[in-house]
Amino acid sequence: MILSGAELSKKIKSETAEEVQRLKAEGITPALRCVVSGDDRATDVYLNSIKKNCEKLGIDFAKVTTEGKKIIEDVKSLNDDPNVSGIMIMHPVPKEVDELTVLETLSPLKDVEGRTPQNLGKVLLGVKSFTPCTAQAVMELLEYYEIDLKGANVTIVGRSTTVGKPLSLMMLSKHATVTVCHSKTRDLKEKTRNADVLIAAVGKAKMFDADWVKEGAVVVDVGINVVDGKVVGDVDFDSVSQKASVSKVPGGVGSVTSAILMRNVVEAAKINAKK
Amino acid sequence: MILSGAELSKKIKSETAEEVQRLKAEGITPALRCVVSGDDRATDVYLNSIKKNCEKLGIDFAKVTTEGKKIIEDVKSLNDDPNVSGIMIMHPVPKEVDELTVLETLSPLKDVEGRTPQNLGKVLLGVKSFTPCTAQAVMELLEYYEIDLKGANVTIVGRSTTVGKPLSLMMLSKHATVTVCHSKTRDLKEKTRNADVLIAAVGKAKMFDADWVKEGAVVVDVGINVVDGKVVGDVDFDSVSQKASVSKVPGGVGSVTSAILMRNVVEAAKINAKK
Repeated sequence: MILSGAELSKKIKSETAEEVQRLKAEGITPALRCVVSGDDRATDVYLNSIKKNCEKLGIDFAKVTTEGKKIIEDVKSLNDDPNVSGIMIMHPVPKEVDELTVLETLSPLKDVEGRTPQNLGKVLLGVKSFTPCTAQAVMELLEYYEIDLKGANVTIVGRSTTVGKPLSLMMLSKHATVTVCHSKTRDLKEKTRNADVLIAAVGKAKMFDADWVKEGAVVVDVGINVVDGKVVGDVDFDSVSQKASVSKVPGGVGSVTSAILMRNVVEAAKINAKK
Repeated sequence: MILSGAELSKKIKSETAEEVQRLKAEGITPALRCVVSGDDRATDVYLNSIKKNCEKLGIDFAKVTTEGKKIIEDVKSLNDDPNVSGIMIMHPVPKEVDELTVLETLSPLKDVEGRTPQNLGKVLLGVKSFTPCTAQAVMELLEYYEIDLKGANVTIVGRSTTVGKPLSLMMLSKHATVTVCHSKTRDLKEKTRNADVLIAAVGKAKMFDADWVKEGAVVVDVGINVVDGKVVGDVDFDSVSQKASVSKVPGGVGSVTSAILMRNVVEAAKINAKK
């Protein structure tokens, strides 16, 4: 089986677009603000794709350019602005401030990427919050394909604060037995071959071929690597798809992630309208 | 080897007592407030032991009795009181409020048990915060006995928000490969027998005997179970100590936990004095 994000992404976006229309009829326009410091071509490409998604769904989008310590004041203004629903802080933040300070400034109610300590703590507590979009996308993709996680041996390779760590907590809430591996793991292949569900989130192009995967496993590829101008995942799709179910890159987790981000902006618009 | 908490606990308490004296000389008295609702004999026993520890170290202690929704106002008052350093919310909270609301009210700077979403989120982010005391005690006990966690296979049995989940994140920060197991785990014994370091945090008296443990492993017993009026851990000490290093119950993790709580109150006194 191939786990495609296309259908699920389309479904989320279509529901979100309907919700935007409903809110606009009530006089509420969901609005996303992306806080950017410095020039970065990669950031621009990413921003443009977010902007396009917003436009398609009727969400108001704007880039807020900042620099130095001013980012703190800018984030506070956006927190306080009743016309702003969601705020994204783009990497990297200015070198004059540390990222934690910026995240602690950001209102958890507008933190549509699920990056603030408060929202991450709620992931640990297993209560509703804005969750990191990529980790959430993995969970929803598995749910969409009705993969049973209860008691399943899940191996996550990668321990980032945006994917591996929150995803491990979300998997535990779904009653999976979770192993988190990383660059210091010994006998990594033993751990991946033991997995009923393998999550590849290391950022190494085609690192995992069929030899790393158990027959009949479900493999979710979170990697986004550019090789010779082409986007490839952490999984060698052609090899692994012979013996396991595997998600596509592009067109897998990434497309669901961007849909979830849009849904979160609309969710934030509703939460902040009720305040 | 037997992992005793006695020496480490004594060391932490002695350093904490010195720090209390230093602070008092500056006119600052570290003060702990325990918010209690309802009557519960178990809570009373626990409170008395905390009170005794506070008295020994020169920390001001008081119980704050509350009921119903008033707990929210009481916690807010304690947050705002410059003479209060640390606040503990005792289980259970009044049925009229939900626990998350109470935790979200508690100031993270006075959250000496590391239970607020903010502090738990910081555990995930790997930045300094008040951490859940029991999980912290496990980490410090292992460090005290110079157990190398880098690349070690750590199996944690138990996925609570106070031990298993935060501990898994703390172990990842120390470069361990972490597997979290629980009641829905299949082939649990396979996972415990594979562990270089096994953390037992299930709350079942003497559940793990030698058969569950790898030769030469390090076993940390977080269990506190009362059997026939005697406190026993989750590990069958006599059996496991024949083939592995194991922590004692009582006199292991628990004694370090109570010392860490005291240290956190003093730390909170310093943080709140600086505000």
